[in-house]
Amino acid sequence: MKDAMNPYMSPFLKHLKPYVPGEQPQGEDVIKLNTNENPYPPTPAVMEAIRSISDHAVRKYPDPDCRDLRAALADLYGLAPANVFVGNGSDEVLALSFLAFFKQGQPILFSDICYSFYEVYCGLFQIAARRIPLTKDFDIDLKQYDGRCGGVIFANPNAVTGKIVSLSDLVALLRRIGDRVVIVDEAYIDFGGDSAVDLISDFPNLLVVQTGSKSRSLAGLRVGMAMGSETLISGLLGVKDSFNSYPLDSVAQAAAAAAFRDRPYFEEARQRVIRTRERVAQRLTGMGFTVIPSRANFLLVKPPAGNARTLFNDLKKKNIFVRYFDKPRLRSFLRVTIGTDPQMDAFLEAL
Amino acid sequence: MKDAMNPYMSPFLKHLKPYVPGEQPQGEDVIKLNTNENPYPPTPAVMEAIRSISDHAVRKYPDPDCRDLRAALADLYGLAPANVFVGNGSDEVLALSFLAFFKQGQPILFSDICYSFYEVYCGLFQIAARRIPLTKDFDIDLKQYDGRCGGVIFANPNAVTGKIVSLSDLVALLRRIGDRVVIVDEAYIDFGGDSAVDLISDFPNLLVVQTGSKSRSLAGLRVGMAMGSETLISGLLGVKDSFNSYPLDSVAQAAAAAAFRDRPYFEEARQRVIRTRERVAQRLTGMGFTVIPSRANFLLVKPPAGNARTLFNDLKKKNIFVRYFDKPRLRSFLRVTIGTDPQMDAFLEAL
Repeated sequence: MKDAMNPYMSPFLKHLKPYVPGEQPQGEDVIKLNTNENPYPPTPAVMEAIRSISDHAVRKYPDPDCRDLRAALADLYGLAPANVFVGNGSDEVLALSFLAFFKQGQPILFSDICYSFYEVYCGLFQIAARRIPLTKDFDIDLKQYDGRCGGVIFANPNAVTGKIVSLSDLVALLRRIGDRVVIVDEAYIDFGGDSAVDLISDFPNLLVVQTGSKSRSLAGLRVGMAMGSETLISGLLGVKDSFNSYPLDSVAQAAAAAAFRDRPYFEEARQRVIRTRERVAQRLTGMGFTVIPSRANFLLVKPPAGNARTLFNDLKKKNIFVRYFDKPRLRSFLRVTIGTDPQMDAFLEAL
Repeated sequence: MKDAMNPYMSPFLKHLKPYVPGEQPQGEDVIKLNTNENPYPPTPAVMEAIRSISDHAVRKYPDPDCRDLRAALADLYGLAPANVFVGNGSDEVLALSFLAFFKQGQPILFSDICYSFYEVYCGLFQIAARRIPLTKDFDIDLKQYDGRCGGVIFANPNAVTGKIVSLSDLVALLRRIGDRVVIVDEAYIDFGGDSAVDLISDFPNLLVVQTGSKSRSLAGLRVGMAMGSETLISGLLGVKDSFNSYPLDSVAQAAAAAAFRDRPYFEEARQRVIRTRERVAQRLTGMGFTVIPSRANFLLVKPPAGNARTLFNDLKKKNIFVRYFDKPRLRSFLRVTIGTDPQMDAFLEAL
């Protein structure tokens, strides 16, 4: 990427810095703890839905309104389908939300340590942003987010740290922010946080974004969703229908609806991840690691001695992939996705 | 959609007019000739690829670089994978291309009758546009597209009309347009036009966009592609990676690669559509319709007497869906997708 040199690029995008996703190493013997995928497969109902797709469904355009999938989600959260938006992964949902709501006269606010795609969207759509540092304990302090802004976005639990913000702090923010939109990115909420979905009926400016990629084991199918007031959702639909009428294919729509309808499987799978997380956190603490308390399916940990980057590379040589962020405040940490118990035992053993 | 009233919307988007896709009526007894889908199923290799997806592939993120699919397309066109971009349907490919290349100081150019999404993208991304009328015979006259512009896009064959532009006219345009990008939208090229793909090596500012939705019968899977110089493709990849790292899910990637690799099936299926189109065009002409000569999988036709809108509604009552555009120059026409021979016989019978 040398787009500063690209004579065809829009002048607005000459300095774009794309998001860099975690590596996707191939091979069966890799222990992949770097991109927060779920270590357990999706419910068998998902595979059944995929295998029963007809050639008729492949040949025809999919339902642009994703009615069955939105009905499944509405049912799950006690909402109407008009309160639910779906997109091609929560990344697309977030991108369209930035475009729809965050291009305002004033900068939007997000924390210095957060999902790094937020800053990329701002570059893509020329949205001004102001970063508010986490506290020294890596907490988001919403009291520092004042009302004079173009909007607020934060991840809850926060990406990279796994720490959470209380709903009472969120309510206080929503009360003082007027017509600006607050996006709560709940990609990891099912691993132990309280969702803000129940606040939607009280706050028409609250958008809650979730994903099928983590707790539902659907990363390969690209399904994300947003829940909010009818006003917000109709705005998002208008932007979606001005970008791509059919971002979710017929297979993904059917498979995701099946996943969201199987609640017992979901409960069991997420509880297994939570139990493993707590066990690994305890073991790492016992080994002298600093472990940031996490409500997500990953742990941000600081090795007791020596260099996090060296440890990252040493683990990689043993085919264990974790994530290292070469960024201020994060250079002494590793982020480790919670895998299966045998995978985490291999990881602990390798340490 | 009352977004002019939506207090949360970005002021840039208050007057957005989303694209309106053709109806997707449900039901087995519908004859659907309104959205230019292929009447024949995809190659059995596609269904085989879908059914053999593993739960591992569903659980993990897909390949963000779509290497196997891009290799299949590169092989098909005698290009390198670095000359191939893929996206979530050609609509997404076009949207990202507008954002990457068309936001320049001067307006872009497209014809008055064209794929109506072009104007919608301009609204979404605040791109200025100037419309150049088709000739009275519904031809695009590229000589009227001068070099002082932000870029040019046209569909070849043209959407709605099915008429084509010669490659020599395109070469002349490319020679005089300097560093501006020319996008040729070849959604329908496989039904009888000459592709501009072979010109890519000579013109680094030429982007050729195609789709799996028509000639490959993959509308339900959302796969589109763009072929161009490494410079253009790297620019597109940068914009894609700033919007959504993984727009193609694992199922769509595998199934589309299988479709593009089965050339004998493709040849047979498109020749059937072409034969049916020529037969139906002849029959309609014999019945007194004005038939615009088409190289696409649809016909734009003017009924001999009476109102096109009335005929549209009468056909709908008989469960035959065609497309009516309530727009200047098109109000006396219907656009009819080429279906199977029995479907077209039923359509002719109903007339």
